[in-house]
Amino acid sequence: MPIPKLRQNKERRQRLTECAIDLFIEKGYFNTSVREIIVKSGFGTGTFYNYFIDKEDILKALLEEFAEQIISGVSTYYTTEKDLYKRFIETKRVTMEIFAQNEKLSEIYSRVAGTSQTIDNCLKQFEDKLIDFYIRNIEYGINKGAFNNVSVPPIAHAILAVEKFLLFKWIVLKDITKEEMVAMVISFHETLAKGLINNK
Amino acid sequence: MPIPKLRQNKERRQRLTECAIDLFIEKGYFNTSVREIIVKSGFGTGTFYNYFIDKEDILKALLEEFAEQIISGVSTYYTTEKDLYKRFIETKRVTMEIFAQNEKLSEIYSRVAGTSQTIDNCLKQFEDKLIDFYIRNIEYGINKGAFNNVSVPPIAHAILAVEKFLLFKWIVLKDITKEEMVAMVISFHETLAKGLINNK
Repeated sequence: MPIPKLRQNKERRQRLTECAIDLFIEKGYFNTSVREIIVKSGFGTGTFYNYFIDKEDILKALLEEFAEQIISGVSTYYTTEKDLYKRFIETKRVTMEIFAQNEKLSEIYSRVAGTSQTIDNCLKQFEDKLIDFYIRNIEYGINKGAFNNVSVPPIAHAILAVEKFLLFKWIVLKDITKEEMVAMVISFHETLAKGLINNK
Repeated sequence: MPIPKLRQNKERRQRLTECAIDLFIEKGYFNTSVREIIVKSGFGTGTFYNYFIDKEDILKALLEEFAEQIISGVSTYYTTEKDLYKRFIETKRVTMEIFAQNEKLSEIYSRVAGTSQTIDNCLKQFEDKLIDFYIRNIEYGINKGAFNNVSVPPIAHAILAVEKFLLFKWIVLKDITKEEMVAMVISFHETLAKGLINNK
């Protein structure tokens, strides 16, 4: 029995993204060509272009799916915890664990910034998606009266900034362990939460 | 009357770093060679190597002096303000203004991360210098009883992370204005300070 078309499509796309991830890690994003991704996948050239426009398009897709994975992980956690303070802290642990479990994607995310406008746009899309999610969650806390009525975007940017900076320190600089990374993110958010929580 | 040796040395070094900065901005750090820096400076090859070992060495020196400039700017501000809450907030404005006044160095700092270990080490030296300075300042506040006795390194890392992230958003992505960047950094630190201040 032939593989249904839809499943075959999904598997091929999956294979192309996995080959791209491996090459980006092995050779670096800049030193990887579309040709090499195609060769590694074993597919014909046409197959690649059925799914992606170019190398940036595959990076964009990888980061987009990664953001969705993080948002989905945090959203799942929300169903298990109703206390807004605990949520504020523990969602950061969930996020950092997802970064840590996806070492290759985390490394690609950490390494590609700042060198071309196309890549900056891919990154911006990824980060804006997370920042928007963080904004909605903090606004929820404000609406519930749990958090002070502060300007939300600076806080949401700060959360991602800290996560990103400590991720870089772990995965690129190898200056801290995974456990230290998670502990530092949590410790910082405990202090931040004290400033955010409405004590009236 | 000939220029005294020491002054001549300083001026030559200065000229080399200025040429390097201009080329790093114009062509990107990676696409600039030592040769081009030498040609632009008008000096002989030997002169460059009197002051620097290679391209990374000049980047390292640029970032080191930049960190010293920031630390010196903040230290000067300290002499004008004794209130530790105001200090905590306003030093961030001072820092962001220094970043903003040194657009070229800020852009080089924002763009070079993550692509080679040598560069990562240059960046790490720059960032560690600032983080150590931030740690000492927060510890001072804790020792004075003004701040809660929290774990300091996560806070210090977070401060630099936010500054760096919003700097990138301004200078690379051009997604926010300079004023928005400063306002967001300040707003975030007001919330963080509430969590940090000892209210007992």
